[in-house]
Amino acid sequence: MSVFTRVTEAELTAWLSDYSLGQLLQLQGIASGIENTNYFVTTTNGRFVLTLFEKLTQHELPYYLNLMAHLARHGIPCPAPVANRSEQFLGVLNGKPASIVSRLSGKSLIQPSSTQCAAIGSMLGEMHLAGQSFGLSLANPRGAAWRAETAQQVGKFLSAPDAKLLASEIDFHRSHELSELPQGVIHADLFRDNVLFDENRVGGLIDFYFACNDALLYDVAITVNDWCMGGDGALDEARTRALLTAYHGVRPFTADEAELWPVALRVAALRFWISRLFDLHLPRPGEMIHAHDPEQFKRILQQHIASAGNAIWLE
Amino acid sequence: MSVFTRVTEAELTAWLSDYSLGQLLQLQGIASGIENTNYFVTTTNGRFVLTLFEKLTQHELPYYLNLMAHLARHGIPCPAPVANRSEQFLGVLNGKPASIVSRLSGKSLIQPSSTQCAAIGSMLGEMHLAGQSFGLSLANPRGAAWRAETAQQVGKFLSAPDAKLLASEIDFHRSHELSELPQGVIHADLFRDNVLFDENRVGGLIDFYFACNDALLYDVAITVNDWCMGGDGALDEARTRALLTAYHGVRPFTADEAELWPVALRVAALRFWISRLFDLHLPRPGEMIHAHDPEQFKRILQQHIASAGNAIWLE
Repeated sequence: MSVFTRVTEAELTAWLSDYSLGQLLQLQGIASGIENTNYFVTTTNGRFVLTLFEKLTQHELPYYLNLMAHLARHGIPCPAPVANRSEQFLGVLNGKPASIVSRLSGKSLIQPSSTQCAAIGSMLGEMHLAGQSFGLSLANPRGAAWRAETAQQVGKFLSAPDAKLLASEIDFHRSHELSELPQGVIHADLFRDNVLFDENRVGGLIDFYFACNDALLYDVAITVNDWCMGGDGALDEARTRALLTAYHGVRPFTADEAELWPVALRVAALRFWISRLFDLHLPRPGEMIHAHDPEQFKRILQQHIASAGNAIWLE
Repeated sequence: MSVFTRVTEAELTAWLSDYSLGQLLQLQGIASGIENTNYFVTTTNGRFVLTLFEKLTQHELPYYLNLMAHLARHGIPCPAPVANRSEQFLGVLNGKPASIVSRLSGKSLIQPSSTQCAAIGSMLGEMHLAGQSFGLSLANPRGAAWRAETAQQVGKFLSAPDAKLLASEIDFHRSHELSELPQGVIHADLFRDNVLFDENRVGGLIDFYFACNDALLYDVAITVNDWCMGGDGALDEARTRALLTAYHGVRPFTADEAELWPVALRVAALRFWISRLFDLHLPRPGEMIHAHDPEQFKRILQQHIASAGNAIWLE
């Protein structure tokens, strides 16, 4: 569970005196998430989420918080950070950097329909367009350098064929970069559990703490690899086409993006295979383990390699 | 009804292409308000209100729109203007300055309880505190100069006793200014129809187009004169004490404010007596008439004068 740092009602009431959020009515720890401490907070002004950042620092956080504020101001349904009386989104609570953001409605989906995949495709397109006017920039901390270095670290835990696959994929992407494609702010982790749905409507995009600047197509690939996946590591055709076509209706893909789509799918799968291998084999000391199965993304990667000349694209 | 300028779905869809709000799902004119054209707008991103400003200009609007954005960023439940791709809250639609803002939930109350009066008192205090860090300033366009000038214009329509009352009140307030009291951003029109309630919770403060910088106590008096009024022009004691005590719990009144409370009640009543006289006797040509009864605020004013030494104050 995700309450690493406990906050009492008295502590929160004192902290909230620097905000215009009214009187605290309810405080409830949230039992999910592995990086931060999260609480649902209800005040006389409404429903909010309090986050105490356990790893991210005062230096890294302004990018994420200002990005959420920027997107919310553009009407993207994402958590809007609340400013304190000093006009700051970031405070300190119980020794940790802390922020309080608006709470969105809706629930994560387990099995999205094609209609819901289209909805997330459109929303991702809207988010990419709205992000174009965001003033800050952050290079992807899990880009090519991180992939190569982390692959090196986890390679020794792998079987010979897996180690070979990993090494050859690292090589492949060295000569197949997405850096010439349209760039911008990407969510970089828009899995189903980071989207709240209200029936067929996207009620909220959450958890922007992997957001960065990178190829927009890479973000689409990350999203497709989760939302449109079949049981066997191969993409479901109907859902994939629905998501891509809806995205294309908001931000049309360029010819270069169409050509590099199979590469984007592969590198997006590779990134999560590597991070899951790392979390499994090299857990940080004292970490709450919540390791996802790396095999899943290895299979997805293998399927993408197998179907590379024949990737599912627009309707 | 308040659709002075018609907007078709096709026109709105074209206009929304400059926003990140998704696809238009529903457009519905709002049959209330007398100053602007308002529509409820539902898109795939959520629920919004579109306003075409019929009288306010591109020069006046930034104060109001930036104020709403400022308060929303501080967690005050008020309409949050949506920025377009050029980072502007204000656009032009069908030849009128236009803005699209978030739509809040709740309904206006007709007969607020003491609990609800306390809720609006707290919220007004929170709004005044949050407004302290707002960077723009606008002198009250309906301050002392406007009162004197407008009283002059409407005087000739009044009976002799009413004209005498009006003139003597204008004189009284010349020597009883609130300008030494704590100043800040005030809503200046926080009547029941400008507040959306969700049971006993304030769901939203709306219609900020009379907002300005003035004495905070004056805003409290305007609010009390509407929310806490009995049937006979005299304040209801329980509701008045509840509102004031709740406000005081958020932003404590100063001793000077306590002393000038009877004056604030009188000048707040006078302002609405004058504007209602003006709307009744000097309607602007072609205006949709929606004149409220000036007599109501004359009676309120007379009651305040009668009970001046004995005004209801904190619990």
